[in-house]
Amino acid sequence: MTQKKIYLAEDQMPEFWYNIVADMPNKPLPPLHPATGEPIGPDALSPLFPMELIMQEVSQERFIEIPEAVREKYLLYRPSPLIRATELEKAMKTNSRIYYKYEGVSPSGSHKTNTAIAQAYYNAVSGTKKITTETGAGQWGSALSYACNLFGIECEVYMVKVSYNQKPYRKIMMNTYGASVFASPSERTAAGRKVMLNHPESNGSLGTAISEAMEMAVSDPDTKYALGSVLNHVLLHQTIIGEEALLQFDMADDYPDIVIAPLGGGSNFAGLAFPFLRNKLQSNSDIRAIAVEAASCPKLTRGKFMYDFGDTEGLTPLLPMYTLGHNFESAPIHAGGLRYHGASVLVSQLLNDGLVEASALTQNECFSAGQLFAKTEGIMPAPESNHAIAQAIREAKACDEKGEIKTILFNLSGHGFMDMASYGDYNAGKLADHTLSQEEIAHYLSEIQALQPQLMA
Amino acid sequence: MTQKKIYLAEDQMPEFWYNIVADMPNKPLPPLHPATGEPIGPDALSPLFPMELIMQEVSQERFIEIPEAVREKYLLYRPSPLIRATELEKAMKTNSRIYYKYEGVSPSGSHKTNTAIAQAYYNAVSGTKKITTETGAGQWGSALSYACNLFGIECEVYMVKVSYNQKPYRKIMMNTYGASVFASPSERTAAGRKVMLNHPESNGSLGTAISEAMEMAVSDPDTKYALGSVLNHVLLHQTIIGEEALLQFDMADDYPDIVIAPLGGGSNFAGLAFPFLRNKLQSNSDIRAIAVEAASCPKLTRGKFMYDFGDTEGLTPLLPMYTLGHNFESAPIHAGGLRYHGASVLVSQLLNDGLVEASALTQNECFSAGQLFAKTEGIMPAPESNHAIAQAIREAKACDEKGEIKTILFNLSGHGFMDMASYGDYNAGKLADHTLSQEEIAHYLSEIQALQPQLMA
Repeated sequence: MTQKKIYLAEDQMPEFWYNIVADMPNKPLPPLHPATGEPIGPDALSPLFPMELIMQEVSQERFIEIPEAVREKYLLYRPSPLIRATELEKAMKTNSRIYYKYEGVSPSGSHKTNTAIAQAYYNAVSGTKKITTETGAGQWGSALSYACNLFGIECEVYMVKVSYNQKPYRKIMMNTYGASVFASPSERTAAGRKVMLNHPESNGSLGTAISEAMEMAVSDPDTKYALGSVLNHVLLHQTIIGEEALLQFDMADDYPDIVIAPLGGGSNFAGLAFPFLRNKLQSNSDIRAIAVEAASCPKLTRGKFMYDFGDTEGLTPLLPMYTLGHNFESAPIHAGGLRYHGASVLVSQLLNDGLVEASALTQNECFSAGQLFAKTEGIMPAPESNHAIAQAIREAKACDEKGEIKTILFNLSGHGFMDMASYGDYNAGKLADHTLSQEEIAHYLSEIQALQPQLMA
Repeated sequence: MTQKKIYLAEDQMPEFWYNIVADMPNKPLPPLHPATGEPIGPDALSPLFPMELIMQEVSQERFIEIPEAVREKYLLYRPSPLIRATELEKAMKTNSRIYYKYEGVSPSGSHKTNTAIAQAYYNAVSGTKKITTETGAGQWGSALSYACNLFGIECEVYMVKVSYNQKPYRKIMMNTYGASVFASPSERTAAGRKVMLNHPESNGSLGTAISEAMEMAVSDPDTKYALGSVLNHVLLHQTIIGEEALLQFDMADDYPDIVIAPLGGGSNFAGLAFPFLRNKLQSNSDIRAIAVEAASCPKLTRGKFMYDFGDTEGLTPLLPMYTLGHNFESAPIHAGGLRYHGASVLVSQLLNDGLVEASALTQNECFSAGQLFAKTEGIMPAPESNHAIAQAIREAKACDEKGEIKTILFNLSGHGFMDMASYGDYNAGKLADHTLSQEEIAHYLSEIQALQPQLMA
């Protein structure tokens, strides 16, 4: 029988994260202060993050050692398996080889735990007593809740109200890990109270939840803030995924021609793809890395590479990224993790330089792929992960049509056990596919034109 | 660092199931025909099960080879890891070593998949076109839905109406695997229509759902019926769990003093414990095997070893088992899988012979243990599995009090991602602990006194 699952031994788990900045032909542009248009320094971030994470954010070092205490916690669920999708291949009758890296083995059920543990650790050693964060669909909030609990840090989560009400299981999970969870907008912050005054019926937004979490963090010296994607240090921590996969492909005596991952903020994609891109950047080896976004939130394929705020309220520094504009409102698709208006600075730069590709898929195509995957491989995938599956199926079919045989790898970034309502809607034919007009996109982008500094002109 | 997870390579997965009947000092008493009181033969079961499964049901062979097609499907998720509960040990400050075998890695999230695949396979090779079954909490129904889909068999699940309404995620999961799911009582069967006529507001019961599934099976020669626990062949298929664990303890150079598993019908417990009991029976090695039941459904600790029906309606043969009487109605505890009135014939005989032990725990103690486990080991356990965790914690504490150091193994039979509402109720202090009076138990048992044949007198 073909070997199905490729496991690394625990002592083979990589001891370094990979920082792609060291190998990028064009280094990322700096974050800018919105008022002055000048690059901001590390100190500006110190009310929010411990210095060690800020240093990682601006690091140019190629490899950064994973602290032993972090590796010890990683071993609770890592190394994660690389799995050959034998049953999916058979059902598709494809000649190509399809593999997936399965991050759903983590306690909270997704790759988010990889950075949550690292961030909680660096906060713990620098004396942080409490971490605040926001969460939309709840995967990031549950990962951070678990990680904070491991390091004895209090965790306070502002959960977008609509998710708070629609996804009670995620809230209960966070509570079970010991975190406090508040529906956002809340009465606890000035930002929340302001929104509730103006919009008493507000369902909340990720932007407002970020504002609330940040406000709580900056108002108390023992409290810091944590973000689950987008930032360089978050992407860095996720590279453990791709570093493991490289070793696992050695064991399988194979190597991917195509690497695929979903893209919301960028850490899912970066985590799997960056270590493979190292080979491409250093030795010009031939590999295609495809970031898959939701067609209803198409910043990579239909947005522009511009300076924009990371949050809706305009509180963050300006970041150079592929964006739809920070006022962009994504349709309420079920892959909540892909509804973010921008893409991380690192992925954006690489896309702009033609080193990675992007694809935008509709949710019905993605759930159809997810269902085929569930029926064959067994695992019920997260809605976000379905985007990677659907793209992998597209690529395998394209190979078969051309008579080619390729090795395809995708990131199965999480399981969908807590997203079954989405599958229910799909089974019932209730999922809508949203297409945006050129006018809508142009409108949102025009709103950020004024933010562009001389640098980009 | 201590090795956390012990994996077998795929080619080390055991190739046989273990049939404990071969080593039992007292062989199990035969099933009886309720009308005649005479032992029934294999033929009586042929309308319900394919002959290969019936032969396993009555087999005296020690080892039964796992067909290659079954092993191929097992490899989708097996061998399952044996995990050292390092973080739980630290939190408890225990000197004992605690291990768990994690069956939540299976597609449907519990050990049920092990027998579902085997049953679907034997049905497929004997030409069965459709399998009917009942499900309460939904773990068995989802496992069988997945397995039937793998072998191209139609699957029809009768789901107790109260669960159908309260656990929509499980229903959606079964649909996603391609099964048809009907709330029971349904209009599809005479049994269902009869209940609905007499009790239009009925929430259903496992007994009624069994009747519906059996009725559909016997009325069509191409349709068979499948059961998820209790029967000998089901317990047999689950022994892959303990067989793997034996090999994994060899790798860890350790051996359990105490083996613990939850007990609903018996297959969870048998699956882990029987292979270890082989060593005890063959060489008199010293091991304690503890079956943990719910205090609100205490057939092992407060029931009697008597002949009783396997279902509520009295359609099955009479089985010799520890029972509370087939009319017993368990309180609606959250561990739905533990609410069955009787225990499997094999486990019952072993308990009667003093070869295994039993313990009954309340759900608040179990959820408290489950929460501690989640906060330390990360995995959110199924409510049933919490019973094993709680008993493991009790045993470790008892060792520490006596100054002993033991090796404790328990079966983490499933994850709880789809049971988070139970954790929500626990977190909110809403779980009730039910204690049964002696009078209640005596009442239910008196109802089955008349069923006892001369054999038992």
